[in-house]
Amino acid sequence: MNTIKSLQWRYATKKFDDSKIVSKEKIEVLKQSFNLTPTSYGLQPLKLVIVQNQELQEQLLEHSFQQKQVVTASHLLVICIETKVNAGFINRNFDLVKQVRNTPDEILNPFKNFLLKDFENKSSSEIEQWAIKQAYLALGNLLTVCANEEIDACPMEGFNPKKYDEILQLKEKNLKSVLLLPIGYRAKDDFFADLKKVRRPLEETIIEITEL
Amino acid sequence: MNTIKSLQWRYATKKFDDSKIVSKEKIEVLKQSFNLTPTSYGLQPLKLVIVQNQELQEQLLEHSFQQKQVVTASHLLVICIETKVNAGFINRNFDLVKQVRNTPDEILNPFKNFLLKDFENKSSSEIEQWAIKQAYLALGNLLTVCANEEIDACPMEGFNPKKYDEILQLKEKNLKSVLLLPIGYRAKDDFFADLKKVRRPLEETIIEITEL
Repeated sequence: MNTIKSLQWRYATKKFDDSKIVSKEKIEVLKQSFNLTPTSYGLQPLKLVIVQNQELQEQLLEHSFQQKQVVTASHLLVICIETKVNAGFINRNFDLVKQVRNTPDEILNPFKNFLLKDFENKSSSEIEQWAIKQAYLALGNLLTVCANEEIDACPMEGFNPKKYDEILQLKEKNLKSVLLLPIGYRAKDDFFADLKKVRRPLEETIIEITEL
Repeated sequence: MNTIKSLQWRYATKKFDDSKIVSKEKIEVLKQSFNLTPTSYGLQPLKLVIVQNQELQEQLLEHSFQQKQVVTASHLLVICIETKVNAGFINRNFDLVKQVRNTPDEILNPFKNFLLKDFENKSSSEIEQWAIKQAYLALGNLLTVCANEEIDACPMEGFNPKKYDEILQLKEKNLKSVLLLPIGYRAKDDFFADLKKVRRPLEETIIEITEL
């Protein structure tokens, strides 16, 4: 399928065929794709938690407003933000840049020092909001990758993050859950599969400026 | 190219070959892709402004921290949020759903009324933050689409939105600029093109949970 056909093919899948499992090879593509998401300053304040356990998915259902796609999904992806984006975190990132690119300190340090100061001046809530935006960027990437790979998915904001963090023991890992993406293959009887996609016409969502 | 190769091929292009223009056909793919981005509640609180005017791009340069990719780009995409996501906006969205899907009012109304109340109770700053997240989702989609289509791009948070809004006359259109995406084709001498991509190893960014 070409790009547009893939994006038209995808929809927020509400019921997955629970007999179908996303292959290890496809999961590997999603893992790599998530990790390749560009992030603000390259800091990668994100982690992806991949849940594949029926019992656990059942347990998460009541904290997902009873949205069954969480249970019928082959895998439940949980996009998380790092809660400790502090000097140590930033320094480790620059150590990695140095290691991978062999960039000399005199090139790296000015930007590193700028970032260290910048984050020191931000409140923890500001840092959280900044990281959450990157989680949405990663979701946008993953959704399009799923469409390319013909994997069905359902982007979800509606769940109880505190309960998820508790059940998945995320706090201990310095993580907070932000977004869900159950993935799998659409059930033949998913009512939503055949609904027409609703979008405003392009004339209402795009403005082209070629002259002043 | 397959998905992973495309995502590895892309990078934040800092210098475009200004003799190369992204074709109308490719711009059409980007317009459609932007519009096909899924958004929270399907409300599409976004617009895409596409600037293709050298003089205007030069004028925007000083409000983009002198980042030249804004000028050398074939087109400068500006992802904007709608500033009036009010009852009228929500009602128009449901009119569209009804028109496209022929859904009866008794099915649509409970959700519509929930949303109307929900947004009435949100502060304008909360609505803005909600819309901004959707802008990041759209950016994630567009970046991956650009990679698929072998269009180079540079995701940018660093610019002066107020000046952009002024110059592009966005306020009058109930819009605020949030993110930039200059697009085009990498210049042969872009220093950044050959730098190794820096990413934490998958073991540090992915957690797989198969057991409780």
